[in-house]
Parts: sequence; C-alpha cells; structure tokens
Amino acid sequence: MSKLFMFEKPLGMRDTLPQLYNRKKAVRDQLAGEIKNWGYQYMETPTLEYYETVGNASAILDQQLFKLLDRQGRTLVLRPDMTTPIARVASSKLANDIPLRLAYEANVYRTQQDEGGRPSEFEQVGIELIGDGTITSDAEVISLMISALKKAGLQSFKVAIGHVGYINSLFLEIVGNEERANILRRYLYEKNYVGYRNHVQNLGLSSIDRDRLLKLLELRGDETKIVDAIDLAESEEGKKAGRQLRDLWKLLEVYGVTNEIKIDFNLVSHMSYYSSILFEVYAENVGSQIGNGGRYNELLEKFNQNTPATGFGIQLNRLLEALNAPEEEEKIDCILYSTERLAEAFALAEEKRKAQEKVVIQNIAGVKDVDSFTQKFDDVTYLIGKARGENK
Amino acid sequence: MSKLFMFEKPLGMRDTLPQLYNRKKAVRDQLAGEIKNWGYQYMETPTLEYYETVGNASAILDQQLFKLLDRQGRTLVLRPDMTTPIARVASSKLANDIPLRLAYEANVYRTQQDEGGRPSEFEQVGIELIGDGTITSDAEVISLMISALKKAGLQSFKVAIGHVGYINSLFLEIVGNEERANILRRYLYEKNYVGYRNHVQNLGLSSIDRDRLLKLLELRGDETKIVDAIDLAESEEGKKAGRQLRDLWKLLEVYGVTNEIKIDFNLVSHMSYYSSILFEVYAENVGSQIGNGGRYNELLEKFNQNTPATGFGIQLNRLLEALNAPEEEEKIDCILYSTERLAEAFALAEEKRKAQEKVVIQNIAGVKDVDSFTQKFDDVTYLIGKARGENK
Repeated sequence: MSKLFMFEKPLGMRDTLPQLYNRKKAVRDQLAGEIKNWGYQYMETPTLEYYETVGNASAILDQQLFKLLDRQGRTLVLRPDMTTPIARVASSKLANDIPLRLAYEANVYRTQQDEGGRPSEFEQVGIELIGDGTITSDAEVISLMISALKKAGLQSFKVAIGHVGYINSLFLEIVGNEERANILRRYLYEKNYVGYRNHVQNLGLSSIDRDRLLKLLELRGDETKIVDAIDLAESEEGKKAGRQLRDLWKLLEVYGVTNEIKIDFNLVSHMSYYSSILFEVYAENVGSQIGNGGRYNELLEKFNQNTPATGFGIQLNRLLEALNAPEEEEKIDCILYSTERLAEAFALAEEKRKAQEKVVIQNIAGVKDVDSFTQKFDDVTYLIGKARGENK
Repeated sequence: MSKLFMFEKPLGMRDTLPQLYNRKKAVRDQLAGEIKNWGYQYMETPTLEYYETVGNASAILDQQLFKLLDRQGRTLVLRPDMTTPIARVASSKLANDIPLRLAYEANVYRTQQDEGGRPSEFEQVGIELIGDGTITSDAEVISLMISALKKAGLQSFKVAIGHVGYINSLFLEIVGNEERANILRRYLYEKNYVGYRNHVQNLGLSSIDRDRLLKLLELRGDETKIVDAIDLAESEEGKKAGRQLRDLWKLLEVYGVTNEIKIDFNLVSHMSYYSSILFEVYAENVGSQIGNGGRYNELLEKFNQNTPATGFGIQLNRLLEALNAPEEEEKIDCILYSTERLAEAFALAEEKRKAQEKVVIQNIAGVKDVDSFTQKFDDVTYLIGKARGENK
C-alpha cells in the first residue's frame, strides 16, 4: 500500500473552514428557530451504536455502514441515520410521553464508493413526530418542513408527496408477487420511467393490466391526480391510500402550503421503513433531493413499540447548495500592539468586545508578515512603540 | 456472545435528552460568544481520519483509539482530539495565514475500559492559536479560557500553570537519562507525590540532588514559587523556563486574571505534544480537570510546518458538572384541537410563534392519554368541538 500524503483524509471526509462553517451554522439556526417554535425538542444520540440493534433496524444498506469491533468483539456502526437511534430512545425512555416531538441536528455516516462523489459524513437536520397515527401529524411534519425551509431562505422548491401503500397494492394486484413488484419499484426508485415502460410492455400482461401499470406514470402533478389515483385503484387498500392523500391535501390547504406541493404516486424511497405516506423535497438548482421523510409505523415495532411515527430529514449541505448564498466573511477587527502597550490594547479590545464586536489583539512580535496578516481584518488599529495613541 | 438487549448502547456511549441538550447548548453558546469576541473562528474537521496521519500524530494512547478499516484496507480512527486535525488543516490549507485563531466545538472519541466510568464520546470546546511563538500568545489563550469560563457562569475555579521544559531539564540534569526521568514524570502525572518522594529517596543520589528533586514538590502555589523555581534550576534551560513563567505571570496581571491562577511546576500532561507551558483547570466540586491546554510547537512539525502553537480544550460535560445548574425545562404551550378546528388552532399557533413562543398544536384524535400528554406543557388551550372558543 502506498504511503499516504500527510494531509490526506478518508474517502468522502471533508474539512469545514470558517466561512462555510458560519454559513452552515446560520442556516442550521434558522431551521432550528422554526422547529423549536413548533414545539419540537432537540436531542442527541451517540455516534456509535450496536450493529445488532440500531444497525439492523436502520434502512441503510449494510454495505454502506461504517463498522468496527469493540473490545468485547461486538460490531459497532457509525449511525447511518438519526431516525433509528431516535426510535430506540423513544421506545426505551420516552414511551409514556406520546405524542412526542423530537428534533436533531447531527452528522450521519455512510460509506461511499469513490472520491469526488457524495460525502461519507454529512449533517442532517430533522424531526420525528412519534405516537400520533392521524393524518394531521403527516400534514404537520410536511408543513413544518416547508415552513422551516422558507425561514432558511429557500425560495423555489417543491415537495413531492406519494404513498408507498398505493404502489404496493397496485403492483401486487397486477403482477401477483413481491419479487415482480420489486423490479417495478426499482425502476421507480431510480426514476427510470423509460425502463419501467419497457419492462411493463414485456411482462405479457393483459392490455387492461398493462395500461393500468402505465397509467401509474401519469399520476404525477397537481391534486387532480389524487382523484385519478383513486379511480385507477381497484383494491380497497389502494383506494384507501388515495383517500389518505386526499385528506392530507385538504389539511395542507389549511396549513397554506399547497403551492409547494406536488402529488407523485411514483415516489418510492430507499428508506425501507417508510410504510405509507412519503415525500421528497427538490430545489430548482440541485439535482438530488435536499430532504425527505414519511411515515414509518413499523420501525418502532423493531423496538417493541406498536407506535406510529412520521418525520423528515433535511440534508444541510444540499440545502446550502440550493440556497447558493455567498459565504459570509466575519467582520473582525484587529489591534496590533507592541509588548509594552498590551494593557492599552487589551483595554481597547475589552471595550469593543463589550459592544459585541469581534476583536483580535495581536503582539506585532508574533507576526512574520504584517501586510499579509492584517489584510484579513475589517479594521486594524496600531498601538506600536512607546508613545500613546501613535499610529504607524 | 449473549444477545443484546435491544436498547443497549456501546460502552461509554450516551443519549442526551432534551433538558440536558438545552443546558449543554446554552453553555456551549456562552463559551462561543466570548471565543468569537476574541476573534477566533470556528471550523469543523471530519469524525474519521487516517490512522497513518492524524492517528499517529495525536498524543492519545494507541489503545484508546477507535479504529476501523476502509474499503482500501487503510486504518481509520475516530478523532481522539481536535488539536491534531486542526494542526493538519492549518498546515495544509491555512499555512500562509498566520498567526491563526481557530476554534471548535466537537465530539472526540476514546475507548474506555469499563462501564460506569468515563464517556467514550465527549464534547470539547477549544481554541488553537497557531503561528505565534511569543509568550503573549500563551497569556492570551489562558486569559480567554478564564474569561470564557466566567461567561459560562463558572465561579470557583483555578488554572494551574506549569512548564514541561522546566521539569525535563531538572530531571535530566539529576537522573541523567530519559528512562529514569520518565519514571519521575509518571509519578507527577498521576499526582502521586508520596510515591515520587519514596522513589527519590531510593535513587541513591547525593543529598544535594535528592533535596533538589524533593524541593520540586514545593514549587506549587502563588507567584513566589516562580522565583524559587529559577533559584532551584541550575541549567540555563531550566532558568529560562522559569523566566518564561515569570513573564507570563506579568502578562496575566495585565489581563487581570491572576486571581484564578496558581503556579504548579509539578504539572505533567498525558498530551505528549506539549513542549513548554501547559495548564489545567480545576473547579471546586469536580474531581477531574474540566479543561487543559498548553504550547505544542512540535506537533505542527509532524505536518511539515515549523510553526509554534498553543491552545486549550474544555470538556463540556465536566464544565456542566462544575456549573451544577439545574436542567431547564423549555416553556412550550399546547393547543389541543379537534380536526374540524385545525384552521383555528393553526392561526392561533402562528400568532404565538410570530412572537417567538413555542407552541405545539395537537389533534386530540392522536392522543391516547390527554392528562398525561398535556401535563408536560406550560399552558394548554382546548379547541374541541364545533363551537368557536368553547373550552372543554
């Protein structure tokens, strides 16, 4: 194995220098402001969890998990998402407290195949609404996400809402088994509609069944698609799923967020724990989704709780990309002094700091290149030499 | 291996529930306010680093590192401290920008031997002042730490300041080699002064040399100990180290922080990269140090930069313990509504949220036990049933 260059970082790992750090913090705080105003409470879980518990319950593919062994020989994972650890905590410590509104801002970890691609460590800001099975809680989660994104300054974005249960019942009805349904779901997950179409054509179905599977592709657009979906479904399960979206739409109207919504009955997520309503957020200028969420009633069963739950997660780095705002240079002043005038420099700095101004005081003896050092500051005061108040 | 209980967490890993989370955040923000006012800029580095680079350069014992393999077969570590990653960044990306003032708030990871002991993941808040070799930068770092701790509300604490170079030169002068010096340093590091004394008695030294080693134990106290230390040293190196502390003390007087300082020429750190001045903070009611720091000029050499540096790190959980402040319950109101009155509930909530009040709106249909659910809120408004404004 070749020797590493001393500055190298592992695949997908990144440094966040001050300018980007501040930008991230500002956006994170804007999201948090709204999330807290809606009564959600932030919490933290550990970076490392047992593979046997959280690792297994998570929907992230096994090959994407960072794994290590502890001293007892147990396999640990770096948390690949926050929904599963929060489900663990909610099931063990907070189970009597439902409905629960929890929030987080945390890094999650997923291995990547190649450099130049996605980060292996990235921050998610999200919420979980646990213990409320009504459709109003779905509406709340979606509305809060939209409201928080607007507060963060995001202007042009759409939330696509779908229903996994609708797709599942339609596919099972027509192709008869999970294995064949999975192939169809895979095409939708990859948003490969041409592939889906070709595959459906070659399934040897009756023309009626074939047309129904192809009609599914048209169920993307405004709320009229909900009526079309209810019509297309034949099973009670499918019709019920359609009616759930119809009820959800009405609630979202009350919340005043339907301008940002589009209906998408083709939506399929890699998050296998989503069980019914699910959604994804897209901004105009970013190719990948900047957030997603949905209902995951079955996840808590893995922690022995028969408790409904829903939530969303926003990928902070993608939101920043979508916001496309310039990095903000912090305004910092500098007082450059010579040793004998430290007292004067410190007093002046203290005065400015009391007014919440950011001030560096720097002994000129510690600076190699004064020009290069001072140019990064907003304002520079020189307290050099014996005389008081002299400017260099 | 026994099956894990589904809620178990790895050794030393902890959940942070909302009350403690808020308390941590408040203290972290108080520290950050002061750190930023002094012109330090926050940054982030990845959780995972290469063992070959950062893992090796770090002063944390190899057996305390969390290690894992990446797909290429390289060994990765969970960062055991923040000083080493920041040294990596400063050396590679910011080398022309010195003196640099950087800050961080980040979790670090060290394996622990047994449960009930120390956490394996804990947050450090700290700064690094890179590229200034003058004693004024040591004074700045110590003064900022004291100032930030006061801003966080810490009242009764002491910063012990010592000098590794002083101890090293005294030991080498008397016992002649590093191996024998290490044994003495070990006793001091463990603060096992009885053991040190016994060991010195049995070294077979001349009475003069023995007395000098024993006198070292008396060099703890107020600033008069600095003069005693200079007298005790015979080598130029030892005297120089003493004079450095004398100069530092004078600067700390200018900064007005000497009330919180005590001199301790017995101070030895496990951080092997400290090269001269070092310090530790102790609060009255906490057994372990709540923070520490020092000068680490040699660390950056490992990243090809001949650059002096100094910094401190505060262990946030220990600071919280020292502050001993009650956890703060967030003030959150609740509007409990029945479905047909969602619009009314949402409008009322929006009004309150505009005034930065935290409000949950909850459909009563989603609540199993209304009494238990409502008792956690500060105030509950009921919008139940058809009639407007009716209270249940």
